[in-house]
Parts: sequence; structure tokens; C-alpha cells
Amino acid sequence: MLEPSVKKHIVELQQKKHRAAAKEFLVEGVKGVEEALKSSYDVLAVVVEGSRRDEPDFVRCLSLATSRDVGTLFAGRGDIDSIKTTETFPGVLAIVAMPEDDDTVAENGLILALDGVSDPGNMGTIIRVADWFGCKDIFLGPGCVEPWNEKVVRSTMGSIFRTRLHETQRLADELMYLKQQGFAVYIADISGTPISAVPKKEKTVYVFGSESHGVSAEVRALGECVTIAGHGEAESLNVAIAAGICLFNHKIVL
Amino acid sequence: MLEPSVKKHIVELQQKKHRAAAKEFLVEGVKGVEEALKSSYDVLAVVVEGSRRDEPDFVRCLSLATSRDVGTLFAGRGDIDSIKTTETFPGVLAIVAMPEDDDTVAENGLILALDGVSDPGNMGTIIRVADWFGCKDIFLGPGCVEPWNEKVVRSTMGSIFRTRLHETQRLADELMYLKQQGFAVYIADISGTPISAVPKKEKTVYVFGSESHGVSAEVRALGECVTIAGHGEAESLNVAIAAGICLFNHKIVL
Repeated sequence: MLEPSVKKHIVELQQKKHRAAAKEFLVEGVKGVEEALKSSYDVLAVVVEGSRRDEPDFVRCLSLATSRDVGTLFAGRGDIDSIKTTETFPGVLAIVAMPEDDDTVAENGLILALDGVSDPGNMGTIIRVADWFGCKDIFLGPGCVEPWNEKVVRSTMGSIFRTRLHETQRLADELMYLKQQGFAVYIADISGTPISAVPKKEKTVYVFGSESHGVSAEVRALGECVTIAGHGEAESLNVAIAAGICLFNHKIVL
Repeated sequence: MLEPSVKKHIVELQQKKHRAAAKEFLVEGVKGVEEALKSSYDVLAVVVEGSRRDEPDFVRCLSLATSRDVGTLFAGRGDIDSIKTTETFPGVLAIVAMPEDDDTVAENGLILALDGVSDPGNMGTIIRVADWFGCKDIFLGPGCVEPWNEKVVRSTMGSIFRTRLHETQRLADELMYLKQQGFAVYIADISGTPISAVPKKEKTVYVFGSESHGVSAEVRALGECVTIAGHGEAESLNVAIAAGICLFNHKIVL
């Protein structure tokens, strides 16, 4: 059984305003919790469904937590309904502190910037694909879904703990600064230079906008529009697929 | 107000067994309904939320329906709660007949085959990206989610009406046949030849498996494993992103 105050805290962390106030968020599921415990993030507590504590996956999570001096708690059957964020509770969750703002970006590297990407699944999948291609830094501009939302965290499959997320309300200023540092800025758009034909530079920022409105005019003016040539009649590509293709295309050359 | 029998039919079509019996499925939202009406699919009825019938999007849907001799119905406020499949009813849906089985495949072409892709969002996004890259034929093997599921239909954004879906329980037999017709069969896997290094052939089938189990051994034995090289620590790529990258990579060369 969880203490009422702990249960209340977990339920509150399912809301953005409480996450912002506590500077904490939740990660659910074995994969995510393990990745959190293996990362440099500060994990505050691991909660396991009591009746499942002997299952190998959870034994592993608990021992990892103990080895990192992270407190472990057991949830009773009656606790699960209030703390779960999806239909089926995956048996384990962790309470994790949000990282400190970190202004560092990879000096010679590949950066993503998102402008108004509001769908949690798309955001999470973009973070996961960035991690796949070794892209560490992701700027999140105005209109983006908050990355500590449980749906985002879940769909990153643990990759959120290996990327640096830079939340900003002034995306154009950040891009301007990166340009001054020698980064090429490519804006993914429905028209522009085919992505396979743009010169590849080691220092590159790829910018993606919302699926309905694209990239804001202010941001667009800072870079060169690039596009993924279509060969059918579909009107648009999913933004996470577009990000995956841009990163793949970048990496096969560099 | 909808007739009770019509309302019952729409509600039933939200279940797989009833879709299979009626050989009909639902498409919701302006984009999907318009694409259905512009396609060769047989649209049986268009249902618009009565109070919104004067909005330009719905006027357009209704006039398109009328020009195709498709019956139009108006739903009352009380009907919406029972017929909607998502929290917010998008104002319009269509009842569409499933297409006849069509054994034709593009003779010189690009084919996708899915083996156990059970997530509706992934399946829908794969159909959408196939359409983007002009890939018409998609084989759906055992363990795949039924493509007429409303979540799949919704996430194709209308592309389902421009692809030929071949549902089969004998995917290995189909791939064997395609090999005999001169198709190269590439199996997307966690290891194999880097996708950017495989010889591109005009006649190619790319096979994708479930995210948790990959492609079945029987199917795997029929092709060459190819992989999308990672540069970070993520364990896997989302299957729809992998499909998008394979298609992009195929098209930039051919």
C-alpha cells in the first residue's frame, strides 16, 4: 500500500502544472524505468505493483534502484487504479526529477528543432529517432507539447534520458545563435531543395513544424527550405517520419 | 436524427466481426471522407452532424457525395454520442464497402509486406508513407491489425484509399511467388546489410515485422536482412520510421 501523500503526488504529476511546480515527472514501464535508472537523471522513487514484485523484470528494476540508492515502494491493488495513466498499469513506474536547464549543445553536431509539434506520440517518436541517429540536442519551441507529458515519455522508449531537451519560447533567437556558430539551418517543408541534394555539413540543425501549420514565418526566414520528394498522391508525411528520413540522409553521407 | 437501424449499423461497424460480416468499414473526418469519395471505393453513405451542415468543409463533402450518387444522412445531437469513435466527433463519417480481393500487384514496383504489425497507428502511418513514396501494394500477414480498424483508417489520412492492401495468412507463400517473379526481398532487421549499401532493384519487396518479435523465421529465410545503422544507444527504431527510411532510400537511387 502506498501512503496517501505519495499516491496524491503521483496523481498530481499526471498534470502539467503540478509537474512544472514539482519539477518532477513520471516514467512508466520496465524499459523506461530501467533507462532512467541507468541515466544521469535523478530518480526519486521506484514504485512496483506489490503482487508482481517477484517477476524477473521487476526484480531487475528493484535491484538497479537499490544499487543507485533510490527508494522503492510497493503499490497495492487498490492503489493501481488511481496511479495508472493507461488502461493497463505496466507494473512499475518511477518518479524522476526534471534535468536542470543545460545550455550546452554538441559543438560539432546534429541538432533538431521542433516548432509547434503538439502531438505527444510524434514528439516522443522524434526523440527516439534522434537518439537512434546519435542526435543529442533537441530544441522545443512555442506550441510544442510539454516533453514530460507521460505520453511523450512513454513513446520515447527511454530515449528521453539520453537526449538534451532545450525548451524555449524564443526558437528564432536560438536558431540565430546557432547560425552564428556555423550551423546550417534546414527547414523541413512541403517544397524546397530535395533533402538528398542539399549539401551536408557536419554542423546542421533540422527544423520541423506542426503538421497542420508547418514552421512559423519567423523561423522559416532563418534557414533554407528542404523537402522529401513524394512520388504518390499523399499530401504530407508524418513529421516523425520526416525527421527520421532527414537524420538518415544526413548520416549516410557524413 | 438517424434511423435506429442506421445508428445500430454504424455502432456495429466499430467491431471487427461486424465489419467482416458486412464487408464495410467506417471513415471519419473531412479529409478521409473526401478521399474516399474521390477514390474508386464504393461509398455507401455519408453522415454529417446536422447542426454543422452549413460549414464549408461539410458542404463540400455533401456536394461531392451527391455528385457521386452517394446517400447523405444527418445525425442529431443525440446520435453523436453513440456513433463517435473518438472523444470528439469530427462532424462527418462515411460507410465504405471493403474492396474486392485484388491479386494484382505492380509488375515493376515497390511492395511492402508487414508481418505481425499489430499497432494501428504504426500500420496507418506505414500505409500513409507508402502512398507518399508511390508504393501501391502492401501485403498484410498474420498478426497484423485489421486495416479497416478505425484507428488505422484515421492514421492513413486518406492514403488507405490509394493503396491495394493484400491481407494474407500465408505471407511466406506470397513472398516466394514474388521472388519467382523477380522481386528482391529485403527483410528489415536489427542487423544485416546497411540499407544504404544494398543493391537497388526496381522490383523490390521490403518486409517489416512486429516491434517486439521482428519477422517470423519462415519469412526471414526468404530474403536478405537489411538494417538502418544506428549511431546512438536507442535499441530500436519505430517500424513506421524504418519503413519510411527504406522507401526514401529506395527512391533516391531509382
